[in-house]
Amino acid sequence: MSKKHLRPAIQAIPDGRPFIPADHIERVQGRPLSIIVGANENRFGFSPKVSDAIAHSTHRSWRYPDGELHDLRAALGTHLGVGMEHITVGGGIDGILCDLVRLTLDPTDTVVTSLGAYPTFNYHVVTTGAQVITVPYKDDHEDLEALAAAAQKHHPKLLYLANPDNPMGTWHSAEAISAFAASLPEETLFILDEAYIECVPEGTAPLLVPTDENCLRLRTFSKIYGLAGLRVGYGIGPVGLISAFDKVRNHFGVADIAQRAALAALGDQHFVETTAQKIAHARTTITRLTLEMGGHAIPSATNFMAVDFNIGLEGANALLARLTARDVFIRKPIVPVLGRTLRMSVAPDPELEQLFEIIKDELPKIRA
Amino acid sequence: MSKKHLRPAIQAIPDGRPFIPADHIERVQGRPLSIIVGANENRFGFSPKVSDAIAHSTHRSWRYPDGELHDLRAALGTHLGVGMEHITVGGGIDGILCDLVRLTLDPTDTVVTSLGAYPTFNYHVVTTGAQVITVPYKDDHEDLEALAAAAQKHHPKLLYLANPDNPMGTWHSAEAISAFAASLPEETLFILDEAYIECVPEGTAPLLVPTDENCLRLRTFSKIYGLAGLRVGYGIGPVGLISAFDKVRNHFGVADIAQRAALAALGDQHFVETTAQKIAHARTTITRLTLEMGGHAIPSATNFMAVDFNIGLEGANALLARLTARDVFIRKPIVPVLGRTLRMSVAPDPELEQLFEIIKDELPKIRA
Repeated sequence: MSKKHLRPAIQAIPDGRPFIPADHIERVQGRPLSIIVGANENRFGFSPKVSDAIAHSTHRSWRYPDGELHDLRAALGTHLGVGMEHITVGGGIDGILCDLVRLTLDPTDTVVTSLGAYPTFNYHVVTTGAQVITVPYKDDHEDLEALAAAAQKHHPKLLYLANPDNPMGTWHSAEAISAFAASLPEETLFILDEAYIECVPEGTAPLLVPTDENCLRLRTFSKIYGLAGLRVGYGIGPVGLISAFDKVRNHFGVADIAQRAALAALGDQHFVETTAQKIAHARTTITRLTLEMGGHAIPSATNFMAVDFNIGLEGANALLARLTARDVFIRKPIVPVLGRTLRMSVAPDPELEQLFEIIKDELPKIRA
Repeated sequence: MSKKHLRPAIQAIPDGRPFIPADHIERVQGRPLSIIVGANENRFGFSPKVSDAIAHSTHRSWRYPDGELHDLRAALGTHLGVGMEHITVGGGIDGILCDLVRLTLDPTDTVVTSLGAYPTFNYHVVTTGAQVITVPYKDDHEDLEALAAAAQKHHPKLLYLANPDNPMGTWHSAEAISAFAASLPEETLFILDEAYIECVPEGTAPLLVPTDENCLRLRTFSKIYGLAGLRVGYGIGPVGLISAFDKVRNHFGVADIAQRAALAALGDQHFVETTAQKIAHARTTITRLTLEMGGHAIPSATNFMAVDFNIGLEGANALLARLTARDVFIRKPIVPVLGRTLRMSVAPDPELEQLFEIIKDELPKIRA
């Protein structure tokens, strides 16, 4: 196929599928998945207030959504204790990352991230032609010391860090993150992805200082709020940066139904609290069941866990394939040192027990 | 506010509101709009099958959408008689334009469009730093001859044309468009925006030749399908270009509910046909009512009309302000020569009659 119209930076991106949706597996296997723990969705659902909001706003779908996302940004501002001028809303954190690289990166720029961290950041960066510099994990944690050293060396335009981390679920304290942020070069914008921030132990989220010119915090309705299907994420940052999103974003891009659903979800903090408890419980279930299999679940502050069955990278790859063939949607970290683990989302106990029954069945075949 | 992290191309974009949503007017005026004819939404609503599809898929909203948009692309392929590998789906035509400029434009590139044409194309182009070359309208039509001459002179990477046109509603025949496309330089990708293609007279849409390496056609569920609130548009083009969208797009960006709603809408072609009839009737109503006011509605092949009350640019600006103050959402072309008109969406007769009652009331004050 001719690629003559494409930019050189795009031509340089290898062909292939950057993301495999769960639906793709269902199509290939010709049947529905039976256990879905691969994308860190909220297996405890979403607030009933969301269903009501969708039912009550469906009739408005002929009309364009509010391109200023006013009501949702105002409610987020009240919830977070920051002015709404510090908040931008987009098509999930993924959508905001896309707009962010368009705002900030020229081909001569560099960014720093961890080797094996959330791939969608890199996915969007490479479209700009900017260079991605990666720093290995250390003991399954993003390595703050090495990231800071890389920042001092390369003076990146952006430094991306998820706290807690995806895919490993590990985390750093608020103090460690704040000290790290303060150590970055003045020209570096710190992108702090907090997709799982509602699940973390106290003392994990640094104080929100939206006037900080060098930090953008990213959060989402796709995880604890249970609305991955609706595509709503948000960024919190300084007014100069947040208002610049209005120069690149798809203004009418967040569906009216999605805005109203997110508003309803935000209004039900009781759901968030009880879900956080369910997530914490499910982590203990995964930890126990993994231990019973002679493995080890890495402590996590998220709604997923990286589990290590002591079968190494090849064993983990083989187990992933076997689980997929048995209609389990599960993923694993891409890079070798982390890839000895499988990453599974938490779920209600019966589903986790069912999952571990299958693992119990397949694991001996791999260990043999 | 500090802009130090922003690319020079972004810093060069003037501050301000690029788009004013209807909701913004409601917030400023402190009351709901009474007549909504400003954004070419479908005032005849959407298929009842859409409501059913949303009601039946709401419970799935905890799950990420199908990132391959398989079912919708397959159904579109069947409907259009082209393979689904020729179709990409995104967040409205606006979302696809955003991805398109990221695929194709470097700062050294140029694009050609008409002066006063759909502004969202330019909005996305300027973020890349590419140069926008504009060609004036001729007799309220996009000027194919002058556009072709500009293409020969500037060898643009992209040439954007809407047929029928927005904001004027005028159109060219399929033969004229095909001859125009054939005249473009080999390095130019022809972007043919067909947002209103379901309303046009026969002989307006060129034959779909999805293997044509030099053409991308854009269509949407926001207009005749009545789903502007849900954000679903699509592009039809050669496989090399369509598959390249997978290198830049927000893969999980189209909400699950929106995909299912669009699928249901596509399945109800009876709704589309009856709506096209209603639109055609409403155009005759607008034409008649405008004539009664001593004005002239420019013949249109869309669900809106540019109406000229013979009050010139200043008069039209004043009328727009007066109508807005009376809770009418209506817009007008931006550039002077077209801006002597107001652009109004079609609507049911009672609403149009109500609108013209207000115009009848305000027009003498402007003519005085």
